[in-house]
Amino acid sequence: MKIYESRQAPNPRRVRIFLAEKQIDMTYVQLDLAAGENLTPEMRKKNPTTKIPFLELDDGTFIGETVAICRYFEEIQPEPPLFGRTPLEKAQVEMWARRVEFHMMMPVGMCFQHTTGYFKDRMTPVPSWGEVCGDNAKQYLIELNDHLASNPYLVDNYFSIADINLFCAIDFAKVINIRIDKDESFPHLLRWYKNMKQRPSVSV
Amino acid sequence: MKIYESRQAPNPRRVRIFLAEKQIDMTYVQLDLAAGENLTPEMRKKNPTTKIPFLELDDGTFIGETVAICRYFEEIQPEPPLFGRTPLEKAQVEMWARRVEFHMMMPVGMCFQHTTGYFKDRMTPVPSWGEVCGDNAKQYLIELNDHLASNPYLVDNYFSIADINLFCAIDFAKVINIRIDKDESFPHLLRWYKNMKQRPSVSV
Repeated sequence: MKIYESRQAPNPRRVRIFLAEKQIDMTYVQLDLAAGENLTPEMRKKNPTTKIPFLELDDGTFIGETVAICRYFEEIQPEPPLFGRTPLEKAQVEMWARRVEFHMMMPVGMCFQHTTGYFKDRMTPVPSWGEVCGDNAKQYLIELNDHLASNPYLVDNYFSIADINLFCAIDFAKVINIRIDKDESFPHLLRWYKNMKQRPSVSV
Repeated sequence: MKIYESRQAPNPRRVRIFLAEKQIDMTYVQLDLAAGENLTPEMRKKNPTTKIPFLELDDGTFIGETVAICRYFEEIQPEPPLFGRTPLEKAQVEMWARRVEFHMMMPVGMCFQHTTGYFKDRMTPVPSWGEVCGDNAKQYLIELNDHLASNPYLVDNYFSIADINLFCAIDFAKVINIRIDKDESFPHLLRWYKNMKQRPSVSV
């Protein structure tokens, strides 16, 4: 099997870290997004949404969406569990993974796309919307910092895919000039970030 | 346990249908969003994001996010399984559930909020962004219709949470004047919709 991705993009990184945590080896195929290699008719047939990453299984089946790819590997190799261990923990992981996606990863991505026009050949940038998204992402850092004041990880003391999502979102946020290491307002978030930074998986 | 929700909103409906499919009885507490009943200090303490629905367990634990609530019930009562039965099917359900959320439910919601100003007391409407979202949602109907031409449900012949997401998104889309029953362009989507409409769960 292999994963089509782009090394610079934040979502493929989520999958790479997830697989590194599970010590699963993978073949990665690079697509140049700026050159539109994900938009060719051949690629659209495999992956109609054109989003990366996507997974190709040995029988030719394709699975798109970052979290769907991660879930597939959670199912075929449960150890170490990254989506939770009990019903309540699984629900809490789902909750925090989604909060981080909806209130941090997505607004950062939209701020980047709508204010820079990076993909203006394939979407309609609305700069004023991009600015709102950037403000919303900054605002959400406060909530995250408050939450991490009393939690080592997003879900108590259990490391999960929610933390992987947040780590990639925080690093990605540098493209819109959000840098938690330059700002003393977020000590708990920074403590969490430095802790994450020590995991070997995050350098893959 | 009980769920805080608003009967008119699309996300609580996803949970109600999910629980009806599992024949789980639930106590629902109604919050008047227009009156800001979800924004009180008491509610923010329970549910900092202020989004509905959210679940309160008997021990006082709160779980927010529609899909996190559904996953909790999938775990404590697996039958009938609505998140998939095999690793591949679970990944495909996750993929389609997310595609429907990101390319239909969210753009419809953003089009509604940004073009009508419905929540303008608590967010910054950007009407031109709302219009882009409405166009994107309409565009995605084509992809859904194509996919359903050869699939009874979103994931082959397996009814799942992905179908619940789409059904609620399609009904919600009426608020932005998307009506698949008034448009002959989407016969496969309409066949799927009429099939869904016959399930007793969707009238809860």
